[in-house]
Amino acid sequence: MADTPEIVAFDVLGTVVDWHTGITGHLREVFARRGVDTDPSSFAVAWRGRYLPALRSINAGERPWAPLDTLHRESLGALLDEHGIGPRIDEADREQLVRAWHRLPAWPDSVELITRLRYRSTVVALSNGSFALLVSLAKTAGLPFEGIISAESTRSYKPAPEPYAKAAELLEVDPAEILLVAAHGWDLTGAASVGLRTAFLERPDEYGPGGQAESATDVTADLAVTSTEELARRLGC
Amino acid sequence: MADTPEIVAFDVLGTVVDWHTGITGHLREVFARRGVDTDPSSFAVAWRGRYLPALRSINAGERPWAPLDTLHRESLGALLDEHGIGPRIDEADREQLVRAWHRLPAWPDSVELITRLRYRSTVVALSNGSFALLVSLAKTAGLPFEGIISAESTRSYKPAPEPYAKAAELLEVDPAEILLVAAHGWDLTGAASVGLRTAFLERPDEYGPGGQAESATDVTADLAVTSTEELARRLGC
Repeated sequence: MADTPEIVAFDVLGTVVDWHTGITGHLREVFARRGVDTDPSSFAVAWRGRYLPALRSINAGERPWAPLDTLHRESLGALLDEHGIGPRIDEADREQLVRAWHRLPAWPDSVELITRLRYRSTVVALSNGSFALLVSLAKTAGLPFEGIISAESTRSYKPAPEPYAKAAELLEVDPAEILLVAAHGWDLTGAASVGLRTAFLERPDEYGPGGQAESATDVTADLAVTSTEELARRLGC
Repeated sequence: MADTPEIVAFDVLGTVVDWHTGITGHLREVFARRGVDTDPSSFAVAWRGRYLPALRSINAGERPWAPLDTLHRESLGALLDEHGIGPRIDEADREQLVRAWHRLPAWPDSVELITRLRYRSTVVALSNGSFALLVSLAKTAGLPFEGIISAESTRSYKPAPEPYAKAAELLEVDPAEILLVAAHGWDLTGAASVGLRTAFLERPDEYGPGGQAESATDVTADLAVTSTEELARRLGC
């Protein structure tokens, strides 16, 4: 990459925070409390698996926009029913699980990466989570973002063009002055369609140890790295 | 005040940052460069004086919404003409002065106050500045806000109800869970009309030493303090 970007925008869920560990922990607790023997790790992966199809259905206009918490609640209910455990997981349990997405652990190197990039760029979050979810995540994980941009303001979801374009508009920069960092090729493809620069950051444990995370060799991006150290170095920090 | 608020929302221009010192410095530099002997301090006060009337005219529907930078540029041009110095201040000078509002010094106690309040509340900016302006201010002054909310997303300006209501909506809380801190009674009145709690923080030098800043005894608010130390203490921090 030729030069340091004015703005570094981070995808959050999976790229900066470890949803699999956080959600699996809450599922383990709820399932134990209710005497359910479903595997929490694979349930977490299945729950997250409902995410992209739900976004796509909204972006395609097949259903009206709904906040991420609503999508999480619906997909949780459907999955619990498919596992035959819906009646055993009550409303308070479901609320705990949906709210668990507002308090997730950061990957161990995320805070240092953001802190380091702030010396040369303005570092923001650009996520499909609601503003409240992102503020809560940043606070609980100590993520020093300099601004938080939620796709909710566009009533569409990444990878639709609107959230990326909105980020450029809000930050008063050309899209090419923003570098999106994400662990997901579909996000980078959406960003590139609007003219943002793209960096793929490998997060091999996103779906748990041995899970099916994307790898740097699979993805088309302006930059593809396997570590935060390499990303910071390539950005001149 | 009975209890610690879930959210503390700060007005920014005048409450957290010292626009008078910052703008006067830039005016002094530009006027010196152009051999203009207008007093920069009183020009800064006059420029800021055009701010509220411009907002009111937009909120009253007398003109379409326009970003704060545009309002600053218009009122700067009008004031320069009234002082008979318009032709001596070129486009690059004007750009420097409008952009000066994006890089202002914090009051010396602002960073410590925000840091301290973060232990018990979520601390955000709620300002009439654009998102880009606020991100820039926070970065250059090192203000550790946990979220930045600009009135621009509502295409209205405080003290219209929309920006305060938007803050509650985005943060997913009842308005009464937000405490607005401001050095201006008009802002607190707007916030109270939507159900936010209000704290007046005296900033006696807002208009420069000896200027006409509002005082804690003039203002109606749930809490009125003359120092950041008193504010933190009254909020249990």
